Formats: sequence, C-alpha cells, structure tokens
Amino acid sequence: MKKYLVEFIGTFFLVFTVGMTVVSPGAGALAPLAIGSALMVMIYAGGHVSGGHYNPAVTLAVWLRGRCATGDVIPYWISQILGAVVAATGVLCLKGHPVVTPMEIKLVPAFVAEVVGTFALAYVVLNVATAKATSGNSNYGLAIGFTVTTMAYALGGVSGGAFNPAVAVGITKMHLVDSMHLWLYFMADLAAGGLAALVFKFVNPDDK
Amino acid sequence: MKKYLVEFIGTFFLVFTVGMTVVSPGAGALAPLAIGSALMVMIYAGGHVSGGHYNPAVTLAVWLRGRCATGDVIPYWISQILGAVVAATGVLCLKGHPVVTPMEIKLVPAFVAEVVGTFALAYVVLNVATAKATSGNSNYGLAIGFTVTTMAYALGGVSGGAFNPAVAVGITKMHLVDSMHLWLYFMADLAAGGLAALVFKFVNPDDK
Amino acid sequence: MKKYLVEFIGTFFLVFTVGMTVVSPGAGALAPLAIGSALMVMIYAGGHVSGGHYNPAVTLAVWLRGRCATGDVIPYWISQILGAVVAATGVLCLKGHPVVTPMEIKLVPAFVAEVVGTFALAYVVLNVATAKATSGNSNYGLAIGFTVTTMAYALGGVSGGAFNPAVAVGITKMHLVDSMHLWLYFMADLAAGGLAALVFKFVNPDDK
Amino acid sequence: MKKYLVEFIGTFFLVFTVGMTVVSPGAGALAPLAIGSALMVMIYAGGHVSGGHYNPAVTLAVWLRGRCATGDVIPYWISQILGAVVAATGVLCLKGHPVVTPMEIKLVPAFVAEVVGTFALAYVVLNVATAKATSGNSNYGLAIGFTVTTMAYALGGVSGGAFNPAVAVGITKMHLVDSMHLWLYFMADLAAGGLAALVFKFVNPDDK
Repeated sequence: MKKYLVEFIGTFFLVFTVGMTVVSPGAGALAPLAIGSALMVMIYAGGHVSGGHYNPAVTLAVWLRGRCATGDVIPYWISQILGAVVAATGVLCLKGHPVVTPMEIKLVPAFVAEVVGTFALAYVVLNVATAKATSGNSNYGLAIGFTVTTMAYALGGVSGGAFNPAVAVGITKMHLVDSMHLWLYFMADLAAGGLAALVFKFVNPDDK
Repeated sequence: MKKYLVEFIGTFFLVFTVGMTVVSPGAGALAPLAIGSALMVMIYAGGHVSGGHYNPAVTLAVWLRGRCATGDVIPYWISQILGAVVAATGVLCLKGHPVVTPMEIKLVPAFVAEVVGTFALAYVVLNVATAKATSGNSNYGLAIGFTVTTMAYALGGVSGGAFNPAVAVGITKMHLVDSMHLWLYFMADLAAGGLAALVFKFVNPDDK
Repeated sequence: MKKYLVEFIGTFFLVFTVGMTVVSPGAGALAPLAIGSALMVMIYAGGHVSGGHYNPAVTLAVWLRGRCATGDVIPYWISQILGAVVAATGVLCLKGHPVVTPMEIKLVPAFVAEVVGTFALAYVVLNVATAKATSGNSNYGLAIGFTVTTMAYALGGVSGGAFNPAVAVGITKMHLVDSMHLWLYFMADLAAGGLAALVFKFVNPDDK
Repeated sequence: MKKYLVEFIGTFFLVFTVGMTVVSPGAGALAPLAIGSALMVMIYAGGHVSGGHYNPAVTLAVWLRGRCATGDVIPYWISQILGAVVAATGVLCLKGHPVVTPMEIKLVPAFVAEVVGTFALAYVVLNVATAKATSGNSNYGLAIGFTVTTMAYALGGVSGGAFNPAVAVGITKMHLVDSMHLWLYFMADLAAGGLAALVFKFVNPDDK
C-alpha cells in the first residue's frame, strides 16, 4: 500500500507541475525545467519505497527488465493515473477553470515524437536506476528528470511532450490536448517502454 | 550556538536571494532557479552542522520525525526568523527602499498552494535527508533546493511561493505580500510540515 | 557491438536535441541547457557500456590517454557519425523539411572558438571520467554535459558551438552551417582533443 | 607547476565565460547560469590537482583554514590573475574589440554586495570542499558553481557580481567596470574570504 501511495504522490506532483506551468499563465519557456525538476525531486523522495516510476510506460519497462513484481504493475498504473486525475482537477480549480484551447497535433509526427522521447526516458531509467554497473551513483534522479526536461524542449512543440500515459491523461483532462488523441500516447509510450527494455537487455547482456 | 548561527546564515541567504531577485529590478523568470539554488548551496554548506533546515515548517517536520532535539526547535525558529528579518532589511537598503506593491492574493487558492508546495518540500526533505534508505546519496541538497524551484514556478503566481514561514516574514517585511496575510503562511506551512511527517512515517514504517 | 549501439544512441539523442531546439521553432535561449542535458543523461545511461563519448574528438582524447582500445576508435567514429546523420534526417522530417539559412561564420574566430570549447570539453572528460583521483564521483555526467551548455552559451554565436565532429556533420546536414566549413570543425575539434590529452598527462603525471 | 597550470586553465575558462556571455551580444538572462556552470565544471576537472580555487579570495580563505600551503598562495594568485588577463584579451579579440560602456557603480552598495556574495562563496567552498564531515559528497562542484550563479542573479545588478579579484581584473580589462573601482573588489572580496574562514572555524570547532 505504501508503494502505491508514493506512486500516487509522485505522479500527482509531476502532473500538477505540468498543469500549473503550462496552462496560462504558466512558466513560459522555463516550464520544461520545472517539470523535469518535479520528476527529479519525486524520484529522490520516493525511489527507495516504490522505485519512483510515476509513469505507466516506465513501470512496463521496469517490469519487462525484471525489476517490478508482476502483481504491482496494475496497482502502479492505477495509482499513477489516479494521481494524474487528482492533479489535473486541482490545477483546474486553482486556475479558476480556465478556457484552454487544445494544441493541434499531426498524428504521425506526434506519434514519432512520443516514441522517441519515451524511449529516451525509459532507456535512461533502466540504465541509471536498475543496472548493476551504475548502482551507487547518486545521480539517477538528475538523469531521469533532465531527460524529460531535454525531450520536452526538443519535442514539446510536436506532441505536447507527455512521454507518459498518466501525464497524457492529465493533459487531456486539462484540455491541453484533445481527448480523442489519448490512444496515441498510450500506444506510443508503452511501445517505446517495451523497446527500451529490449535495447537494455541487448546492451547489458550479463545483467539479469 | 554554532547550529543557530548556521541556521541564521542559511535563512539569511535564502531570503536575501528571494528579495534581490523578486523585488524589481530582479531576475525575472529566472528568480525561482536562483532561489532554489540558494537553498541548495546553503544545505550543502550547513547540513553537517545544523541539518540545514532554514525553514520553521521543515524544523517542525524533522522534529515530528524524531531527528531534531526538542530543545532546538524554538532556537531554530528564532534563528531562522532573525535571518529572514536581517535579509529583508538588507535587501531594502541595497535596493534604495523601493516602493513595492504587494501581490493580490485570494485566500483559499493561496492557502491550498502553500499547503501543496510546503508538503512537497517537507516530504522531500524527510525522505532524502533523514531516511536510512537514502543516506549516502549526495543529492539531498539538489533535491530539496529544486523542490522550491519547481514549486515556485508552479505556485508562485498563486501564493507568492513562500513554503516557509521565515520566508513569509521576509516577503511581508519587503511588502511583496501584505502583512495581514502572514497568518496564512504560518498556518498552511506548519500544517503541511506536520502532514508530511505523518506521510513519511506511513511510507517508511521500519525507519524509526 | 553493444558499445557501438550505445554510441549510436547517445550521439543520436545529442544531435537530435541540437536540431529540434535550434532549427526554428526551437527552444530559443534555453537550447544550450537542453543540449548539455541531453549529453549528460546519455552519459549516465551509456557510460558503463561504451564510456559515453558520443564525440569523435573525445574518442581521440580518450584513446591518446590510453582508455580506449585502438580497435574501437574507427567503429566509435562511424557509430557517432551514423547517429548524427540519422538524427539530422529525423529532425528535418519532423520539422517538415524547413528552409534553414546557415549562420555566417568568420573562419579564424570560429576556428579559435571550436578549439577553446572542445579543449574545455575533452579536458573535463579526461579529468572527471578517466582520472583515478575522481573515480567514485557521481557527477562526471553533470560536469561533461554542462561544459557543453556553458561553452554553447559562450561560443555558440561565433562558431555554432559544435565542439564535436559528429555534431558538425549533423548541423551541416540540417543546413545550420554551410557544408564547405565542415573541415574546420574536424580539424579544430580533433586538434583540441589531442591538446587536452597532452595537458591531462602533464597535470596527472602519476596516472597511467 | 601542474597545480599552477590547472589554476590558470580554470580561471581562464571562468573569466572567458564571463566575458563571452556578458559583453554584448552575450547570453542575456542566462549568463549567470553559464558562468556558475563554468566554475562548476572546472572544479570537477581540476579539484583533484590544485583544489580548484580559481579565485584569490578563495585561496586566502583556504589558506587561513589550513588547507593551502603558504608557499602556494602567491603562485596561485599569479596563475589566477594571468588566466583572467589572457581570457579577457581573448574575449576582446573574438568579439572584434567592441566598445563596452562600464556599468555605473555606487560604492557603498557595491562594496556590501561583493562582501555578501564572496562570503557566501567562500563559506560554501570551505564547508563543502574542506570539511571532514562532507568529504565523500560528490556535489562540492555543483554547490560552489551554483553559489556564483545565485549570487550573480541576486547581486549582479549592484556590483557586477565578481566575488573574485581575478574576475574583477578580467571585467576591468574588458571595460565592463571602470578600472578605478578595482581596489573595491580586491578589498571586499579578500575581506569576505577572511571572514568566511573565521566563521568556518567557529562552526566547525573540531575540524582542524
């Protein structure tokens, strides 16, 4: 239960920061720095309890790599999506239920952008937080958080830069993207998480 | 005595950076980065002497968690608030006693914002600086400082983003917020510190 | 083979971030932060497999210092340049094949800028990632990534701020610089990598 | 000799970054981030050889604290100031010998700003890089570099934000401040370095 609460809290703060810094008036050009930092600090705070996934695609990748119990996958996903929904509701209340115009998305570039960004994120997570060769390094949280920062700067204009199905639920609920595109984020992000697990196993053959 | 001096110095530099970067002409959109960094560097400098709280709500949370002697709580609070008052006075002198218009605050959103931001801060502090599972990690200062950075980007426009009763005293003295709202910061921030201690104990049941 | 794949992936994400944040509409003044962060996270993700060079000039410097097998140099260079070419192609597709006007470059200042920036980068790499005295420090990735960030802020306006022949291939392919200047980046960057190896050996005489 | 070369290289890159990002066209609001990062990366690169001072006021503070040989103080100062002069010359050449209007400085606020900022810097250096209690922490470079970043955001508009006599020589040579004020930086910065050593000894009484 405590693991699920930590996943809920971490995903809440991630999606809450996305909403407060992206829904106008937000943090403008510095939103990706704030969002990546939110993920970073929640990983440092909760990693020792739940692993600090805060992202269904990361949970999938970590499970495929063999570092997440099968019985935890669905409860983690539920906790993450619940955290995102509560955060999105909170943002809308705090902002006074603003009128938000969803960004226009072109399907193919947005799909590619989500695959590329989520692959980077899950590839970094598996290598810095689950590989034997990097255990003991203090900077797993910095590396994971700033992967989101850099990919959001690179790809935010193409897909909105979710790289995370729970974030996708949150930004849909806040009308930053149209809810009819929600499937795109789930498919692209989960596929990229799976691909990252495959690549991790190939480049770390002796790390079972 | 040396612990109290370290708390005074750290809180001084935190509130001094708040004032110098927020009172016009300040650092604009980069003020939250400077403020979080000020907290980060003072934690690295003073953590080994005093614990590096620089925040009455953090002192409350650390005391509830059992990592701050009861006899230190009041002296820490006095040192922190003294540091804030001296810093605010220094900022007003260096800026030439500017006319500052307090930001308008709506009570309920500001209260919620202070609870959310201070909860994040105290939750991160307890987990990265007092949990057995994270001892040895070098990044406690980075995590704590950047929690303030990210929450200031997210919530600065709602409540001013104090998350710290000593900072609240400082920004009140510099007229960035109206002194009639000071109670709001004390109540919200201390309540959130207490809540974070409860959550910490729930998710770290074996860490006495 | 797995080392070459890791070099390909890391250089891909570095050049991809360069292209997505510099080709308009990009990340404006925050592009150097995103680019240095991309390098940082890929070093943390891949360092334990390939060393995390992602830069032919760094591979040269590490080889001269005696920490890269001679048989790996050419395959590393090929992997890095392939990663850059694929990234540049991907950027042009995602951006819809934009018309890009190459920046104007003055040869002598640009050559000096590339030597200075690449020297800083290779000097930092050798000291933080290959010196015995700094082994165990978690911050090699932060130091290397932010060397690119700071040198890009300092010198981006003079030479484009490649500091990396693979990046030079990428920005040439994206028309950010004119392809007739490609030799300048190769010569300056490889010379600076060699110079850094010499200086490293002089200041670390007992570190064979 | 290798220690002096490392001090020369580190101070060169610090002052070079100051000049390239502050002399127009520079890095605008992000200059303090670039400058603090330059100091950070050079500390990680050279700390194991020379201690990574790059600042006569820091050398004074470290010497007073008993972690710098007396015979090294003057050679360190010379290396640092030489690095600053060469960097300033290089910046003026790369920028095409621009016409720079020195900032207007009010003596008393500028003196106070330099004392406050340099005290913060030397206090952080002594505690994170020379205290027994923090040895083994990887983040000394991050803490020191970002002290300059945060103090430059807070105080750059008051004094120019040197916090370092070698930087003062560099910005004087680049005409960013008037050379008739050079004494102010030397006096304020060295006094603050000495004060930080006193405070360090008071708060770390058992750390000889």
